[in-house]
Amino acid sequence: MDGTERSRFARKAIRVAEAQRLLLARVRPLAAETVPLAASYGRRLAADVAADRPVPHFARSGMDGYAVRHEDAAAASPQQPAALRVVGDVPAGRVWPHPLAPGTAVRIMTGAAVPEGATAVVMLEQTEELERGARVLIKQPPAAGQHIAPVGDEIAAGQRLIASGARIGPGQAALLATFGCAAVCVYSRPRVGIFATGSELLPVEAELAPGRIRNSNGPMLAAQVERAGGVPVWLGILPDDAAEAQARIAAALAHTDLVVTTGGVSVGDYDAMASLFRQGLAQGRAGRGAGLLGGQPQEGSGIGMGSMLSEPADKSDAEPLCATLFNKLALRPGSPTSAAIAGRKLIVGLSGNPGACFVGFELLVRPLLLRMQGAAEPLPRTFRAALTDDFVKGSPHDRYLRAKLELDDGIVRVRPLGFAKSGMMVSIQDADALAVIPAGSRGAAQGELVEVIPLAYGEP
Amino acid sequence: MDGTERSRFARKAIRVAEAQRLLLARVRPLAAETVPLAASYGRRLAADVAADRPVPHFARSGMDGYAVRHEDAAAASPQQPAALRVVGDVPAGRVWPHPLAPGTAVRIMTGAAVPEGATAVVMLEQTEELERGARVLIKQPPAAGQHIAPVGDEIAAGQRLIASGARIGPGQAALLATFGCAAVCVYSRPRVGIFATGSELLPVEAELAPGRIRNSNGPMLAAQVERAGGVPVWLGILPDDAAEAQARIAAALAHTDLVVTTGGVSVGDYDAMASLFRQGLAQGRAGRGAGLLGGQPQEGSGIGMGSMLSEPADKSDAEPLCATLFNKLALRPGSPTSAAIAGRKLIVGLSGNPGACFVGFELLVRPLLLRMQGAAEPLPRTFRAALTDDFVKGSPHDRYLRAKLELDDGIVRVRPLGFAKSGMMVSIQDADALAVIPAGSRGAAQGELVEVIPLAYGEP
Repeated sequence: MDGTERSRFARKAIRVAEAQRLLLARVRPLAAETVPLAASYGRRLAADVAADRPVPHFARSGMDGYAVRHEDAAAASPQQPAALRVVGDVPAGRVWPHPLAPGTAVRIMTGAAVPEGATAVVMLEQTEELERGARVLIKQPPAAGQHIAPVGDEIAAGQRLIASGARIGPGQAALLATFGCAAVCVYSRPRVGIFATGSELLPVEAELAPGRIRNSNGPMLAAQVERAGGVPVWLGILPDDAAEAQARIAAALAHTDLVVTTGGVSVGDYDAMASLFRQGLAQGRAGRGAGLLGGQPQEGSGIGMGSMLSEPADKSDAEPLCATLFNKLALRPGSPTSAAIAGRKLIVGLSGNPGACFVGFELLVRPLLLRMQGAAEPLPRTFRAALTDDFVKGSPHDRYLRAKLELDDGIVRVRPLGFAKSGMMVSIQDADALAVIPAGSRGAAQGELVEVIPLAYGEP
Repeated sequence: MDGTERSRFARKAIRVAEAQRLLLARVRPLAAETVPLAASYGRRLAADVAADRPVPHFARSGMDGYAVRHEDAAAASPQQPAALRVVGDVPAGRVWPHPLAPGTAVRIMTGAAVPEGATAVVMLEQTEELERGARVLIKQPPAAGQHIAPVGDEIAAGQRLIASGARIGPGQAALLATFGCAAVCVYSRPRVGIFATGSELLPVEAELAPGRIRNSNGPMLAAQVERAGGVPVWLGILPDDAAEAQARIAAALAHTDLVVTTGGVSVGDYDAMASLFRQGLAQGRAGRGAGLLGGQPQEGSGIGMGSMLSEPADKSDAEPLCATLFNKLALRPGSPTSAAIAGRKLIVGLSGNPGACFVGFELLVRPLLLRMQGAAEPLPRTFRAALTDDFVKGSPHDRYLRAKLELDDGIVRVRPLGFAKSGMMVSIQDADALAVIPAGSRGAAQGELVEVIPLAYGEP
């Protein structure tokens, strides 16, 4: 290596948790917007939902049967049933206009409002009609309050029902409907610009050529963005020319909430992104494009990150409008994963290796998208599961293995996937978790409990 | 009860597995359509995807470094490094046009095609440049094949990669892109008509009135349909009038793949759906609307279901165009859950109770939507987990409790939710599983292993 090359390796690695903290500190929930309830599935609420009245808001019959005054049948038995005069009929949705007089009953359906004065409902199956429904026989003494849900039985007025930031699924939709939220206030979906880098890359629709491969990380990241609730904006393959790449990224930041790149962050000769994350946007190797962003001066160096700028900007140039947050992580795979801040927006540079790109997105980008959508806890809740197999490969850094959960017989196991070279990309489709093998020389043994990060299921 | 009423209760209950079998036997995957890869997230493939060539399709460098003939540095050591002449430079995407001559090396980047004749790649970090890159020192003998992925190392030509019916997520998108599938053949999304019944129901946007509640099951079902990959088509609140209700259902069947109703399947006086499921469409209580469907005669009674038609159609009328598949299930909650077949389409009548409606959808409707989208296994794979609490309420029928999974310390537990009256609807949002308490008088004890049905996560 010569001196220039050596500087490529002079990166300070930070841990994943620190990288998450640095990134999350830079994002806030996006603006709220109002959408029809019918179009709100999967969106995240921008306000708490509380009960503006009790549920039920009237004493409600829990059965099809007869509303009675329970004391009128207190002495009833199969041998000596109580005979009550049926004075009317309350389908669900109707309200019986009179108080229930002693000795009378009202036929009532499930969900209907119990008449004033009635203290019990007797199931249809436990009654017998007389005189074509003009009278009814009650054969057992009903308990006071039987089959009547009093006002507020299910939900008290004022009760908080859904927290802001919650994702709208079936249960949330039912509550929103119950409380009349035909229009729902939700956070905007983050628009995520996606670039791939690498002169070997071809568009998906292209014929293969010698030495070339199709861009697969771009579509993979787009799917990960969708799964996390964002809107993927595919922006194409970046050229090797650092200045041109940076100009395109700067342009993209103007119409997206976040830019994610894949590839070019390593130590190779053509790793344009590495140059950006080492030197800052508008301070790239070619020296062109200063002031591209036109935004306010970045505030990155004000939070103790200066030490990560391994090559501080030349003070004779304009202030860099982009500052490195980190350009090395203490993890495998994906150690050159990088991030920078430009104006108020983040650029996350993921590895070009498909497995590392996948893992890097889930660890670093998904939490940002959740925070932008108001999620109270953007980081997944981890847990411990037993390894299905020995994982013998130790590492000086924590290793994040794509893995599959196996649940049965009261046990949760985690099976590492695709850590063999063969089938690395094929196994991404099966990963529903990451298993964390801590740094150390020995790996982990079958049956050992390891930390598990559940991946982006539908409803976190 | 009088005789007419008694007949409402004369239903034969079938078990959930039998109901699922009956329903699934009636549906086939829908037509396939082609969508752009970028619009395919969450869709299900209508054909297997296999590798049309190996990956990599050229011998690929796994590192940034130098491609060498390993025997040229077989005697290298830090003290006596091998000096090789650097004859060129292969960025990723380029192909070195000449065979590598003895004593020479080519600078090569990760992902680039290894030159013909090269047998190892030496990492940049383990080399030293001389004469401004004209020569390179190798300090350790490289192993043959080191850092070179041979053709087919990751995927063999012809290997099956994704099965038809699989849901397209990040891993599938990466594979589709790798093999050039810019347009993806997927099954159509099933259109699910949704009706609610009950004269107590108000539209979500309406002001509450005495005795009335807003329709919450409709929006809940719409979200469940979306979660299962279908397209919800909200069709409104059905009137109590059986003939009118049936006419609207018949009209809906013409432009949907499946109709789901909620409410009206119980034994109440106004349970229009119960009448339909007892008597068949066009044979409703009012006697109107015969021949509404205009389709081919149904084949429902040809599969041994005759015994479930508790009131056989009057032979003096037209043949019923809808036949009951079942109108009672041996489960709680939701025993009056019903289904009928009309032409080649199904009508599933779910309970109006929110919890029972939710459970009924997941048990019966979701599998139909998955089958329509080509899923190989439309029923969820169940497993066993330890109950967090005693569940003391025995039942003569299997009980399907909404529940939440708790994973930690290598153990999977399942916590029943909302089986108390209070908070029944509120707890639906937390349910990520159903716990099955088998029929019997004793319930189940804390720590006991019970069957768990995982609910519709994002990527089944």
